[in-house]
Amino acid sequence: MVDGGNKLGKVTIERWDKIDIDLKGPDSKDGYVQVELEAEFLNGNESRKIRAYYAGKGKYTLRFMPEQVGVWTYKTRSNSKELDGQTGSFECVEATGDNRGPVKVRDQFHFAYEDGTAYFPFGTTCYAWIHQPLERQVQTLETLKQAPFNKLRMCVFPKYYSNNADDPDRYPFVQRKDGSFAFDEFNPEFFDHLDQRVEELMALNIEVDLILFHPYDKGHWGFDRMSNEEDKRYLTYMVARYGAYRNIWWSMANEYDYMEEKTLDDWQAYIECVAKQDPYKHLLSIHQGDAFFNNFNEYITHSCVQLGTLKHAVNIGFGVYKAHRDIFGKPVVLDEVGYEGDLMQRWGRNTGQELVDKYWMAAVSGVYMGHGETFQDPDDIIWWAKGGVLKGESPARIGFLRNIIESSGLNGLNPIDKWWILNGAGSNGNYYLFYFGEERLTQWKFELPAFMIESEIVIGSKFKVDLIDTWQMTIIPVDGIFEITEKDRYSHMSGKRPVVELPGKPYMAIRVTKVVEV
Amino acid sequence: MVDGGNKLGKVTIERWDKIDIDLKGPDSKDGYVQVELEAEFLNGNESRKIRAYYAGKGKYTLRFMPEQVGVWTYKTRSNSKELDGQTGSFECVEATGDNRGPVKVRDQFHFAYEDGTAYFPFGTTCYAWIHQPLERQVQTLETLKQAPFNKLRMCVFPKYYSNNADDPDRYPFVQRKDGSFAFDEFNPEFFDHLDQRVEELMALNIEVDLILFHPYDKGHWGFDRMSNEEDKRYLTYMVARYGAYRNIWWSMANEYDYMEEKTLDDWQAYIECVAKQDPYKHLLSIHQGDAFFNNFNEYITHSCVQLGTLKHAVNIGFGVYKAHRDIFGKPVVLDEVGYEGDLMQRWGRNTGQELVDKYWMAAVSGVYMGHGETFQDPDDIIWWAKGGVLKGESPARIGFLRNIIESSGLNGLNPIDKWWILNGAGSNGNYYLFYFGEERLTQWKFELPAFMIESEIVIGSKFKVDLIDTWQMTIIPVDGIFEITEKDRYSHMSGKRPVVELPGKPYMAIRVTKVVEV
Repeated sequence: MVDGGNKLGKVTIERWDKIDIDLKGPDSKDGYVQVELEAEFLNGNESRKIRAYYAGKGKYTLRFMPEQVGVWTYKTRSNSKELDGQTGSFECVEATGDNRGPVKVRDQFHFAYEDGTAYFPFGTTCYAWIHQPLERQVQTLETLKQAPFNKLRMCVFPKYYSNNADDPDRYPFVQRKDGSFAFDEFNPEFFDHLDQRVEELMALNIEVDLILFHPYDKGHWGFDRMSNEEDKRYLTYMVARYGAYRNIWWSMANEYDYMEEKTLDDWQAYIECVAKQDPYKHLLSIHQGDAFFNNFNEYITHSCVQLGTLKHAVNIGFGVYKAHRDIFGKPVVLDEVGYEGDLMQRWGRNTGQELVDKYWMAAVSGVYMGHGETFQDPDDIIWWAKGGVLKGESPARIGFLRNIIESSGLNGLNPIDKWWILNGAGSNGNYYLFYFGEERLTQWKFELPAFMIESEIVIGSKFKVDLIDTWQMTIIPVDGIFEITEKDRYSHMSGKRPVVELPGKPYMAIRVTKVVEV
Repeated sequence: MVDGGNKLGKVTIERWDKIDIDLKGPDSKDGYVQVELEAEFLNGNESRKIRAYYAGKGKYTLRFMPEQVGVWTYKTRSNSKELDGQTGSFECVEATGDNRGPVKVRDQFHFAYEDGTAYFPFGTTCYAWIHQPLERQVQTLETLKQAPFNKLRMCVFPKYYSNNADDPDRYPFVQRKDGSFAFDEFNPEFFDHLDQRVEELMALNIEVDLILFHPYDKGHWGFDRMSNEEDKRYLTYMVARYGAYRNIWWSMANEYDYMEEKTLDDWQAYIECVAKQDPYKHLLSIHQGDAFFNNFNEYITHSCVQLGTLKHAVNIGFGVYKAHRDIFGKPVVLDEVGYEGDLMQRWGRNTGQELVDKYWMAAVSGVYMGHGETFQDPDDIIWWAKGGVLKGESPARIGFLRNIIESSGLNGLNPIDKWWILNGAGSNGNYYLFYFGEERLTQWKFELPAFMIESEIVIGSKFKVDLIDTWQMTIIPVDGIFEITEKDRYSHMSGKRPVVELPGKPYMAIRVTKVVEV
């Protein structure tokens, strides 16, 4: 093993941590465009080709996330003599603590960390938090530390929109004297800052759903209307710089279809630009305004959905949410379903109860949901765009739901009878969550599906039931057990105790779990 | 102009009618496989390349549907000397009577005949009616003549399924002595019969949604598990023989995903085989069981959807139906949503009211729906498979809805506020249908959307309202008018008369139409 000019010495890092290998090269803005530098990293039979990014001031960084333990060596190739043929090595050891690796799709509709731990996305949205004054950013991190969220949707580019008209302190591109931007010159200060934010979120076990493009610019800065070449250079830079963070998800765009300068072919090319260059195959999605992107696309790992309706329609979410899952055959994250708040705009004035109701409908439909908050504020500090503090009633209830799902012991909840039962999910034979939305039931007929399910329930099987008040956040066990005494073509029934009594209140759920006799 | 060996004399046909040009060639089963014959049809700048099919007994047929009036000439090319270089001509004149041409997609979510007349699909399903005894087929045609349906889903291949175990009188392929089928030898008797059925349906103004493959065979005859080459030869034959019928729609398969022998790549190839060879670009869809095909596919003209749930959930259809439209951005035909009937299987025991309720939910969601009927019968004559007579209560109500929509004067109903209002469609400013499903409303707040609609409603605009009982099939005009006196960000209101009184019954709708002052 030979260490090159930029020696690492005996460096050891954890699996799925990132290592930055800084090399000295031409100190010129050519670094962004002309200089090409990549390295092959080898560890036994494993190899990864990694492209470097230019960090400015003659510093070229190979940022790498080892996915296998053992000794890794690398060797560079470059069109710059200085940077070509450099070699080095380091050792990768097992992960510790909260380091579970990147999140990937598992079991078709669900997610897991690479170490096998189930990951249930409970995200929130602060589009432009990194573009706010520093003390606000610190406050946002402090809020997130206490909140139940494990994913954050956030934009690389600043946002020019209602309640968001301030210029940020730093831009991703170098600003010329005339105010315009040099799209071929990345601003190291901006990206060092973004690095730091991504790392801070990682420390909080928060996945970063990084929004690479968005339409909330309208030419104000022009980041929404760069040329194809500039867009691809930017995406290449992002993959080189952020791919090695295990908590990165690629969100190609927010409301991609509102970016009128770009065509479907552009998006297809951009998706491929990211997916094919990303050696780690991070999760990738694209969020829509009106027109859905073709989420059957092979590079799109999960369907990120905006679904703004549903306020006027009692319980309507059940079927609609499940439809997205049935159609795309992928994990569905309903990342924008209206926000808890009191804005003039209707999408920004869900009550806490409405939003929590949607969360439960999503849970029993086998899909995931994202949070956002839009309370009016005298200083226009609105969580959904700027972060700050949370004011709503939904986060605590979302945390309550998250605890229930994480303690289910399942890899994910699946509809228990996809053709017929819209409000029940779990794992047939073992675990069921039923949710009743705004219905004020006084009893629920104890009935577990029997049609084309994988695990047959034996007559005599016993189940216990918990009554869940999703708003009051209580779980009250129902005394005794329910025993399966009969079945027909579609259902298992509990003949001796045919119903579960309910309190006639809205937003109730029940949990049915098999009693395992020891 | 030169007439060839097989002279047509002075032949005149209507635009969108078919012409059969029969040529004499090798009398051998080579006609199905070895002999290639095509012709170029020319009319001014228009040209169409048409492939012939072998009709048996040395007869080779060029079947052509002229889409432009004027004199058409043709010239053949063939690898058989006898068939090569034949020429001829005929004249195409304007269409008359009910001949409106083929149906195509118009206005993204809707359909129209080529002559510009709106076409609203109100189809039904008789999968295997052409495989029943002849008297039953005659009876089916008689029933269809009286019924409100203008599309029929039907299979080419016979069906081997519950309540369907009989062998048909004729098969699409020649049967060998050992009972097996020669997949390279089409049976002229079968296809002459199918021709006749297609023509009879055309005479009834019924579009034929021709199902090219289906899984209800399971190797019993083996039409579901021919080789790739055989499948493609069959599809090529079908396009050559049925493409020239203006009332043909290609349904690539019923429940394509239950045909376990075929892969997604096979289906993609089959779709392209049909779409690329079809000179007329007929409508094309593919019907799913569990797993949706990628309906974003460029060759799929509309989304044909099986959506079997919804029975247990009050009003749930509104949002689910609209979701399919929003996702695919194409016309949606919910061609299988459960059948009116009393079968043991739950998909076959919708009440008439349930099915009609679904139809209205579909209508106000801007999508289309298909009918089917499955009443038990001592002789197992069930409409959905075999045709015969209709016994249900839904067809009359479906006809009632069809009349309402056809008399709307619109090209199609579109959701009037896709982000918010799930139960209202029409054309903003002019025409609205609102449907209330199982809700028993005593009044409806008169409110017309104002958010991001194309046509602004002027204060002072007047509307009249009709009360529709969708089950009793009554339309009762509400006395007087409703005048728009105010609007806010999202709604127009009628301040002097703020509500419409309703009778507190389920399955009610209202129609709101602008009063045009003369």
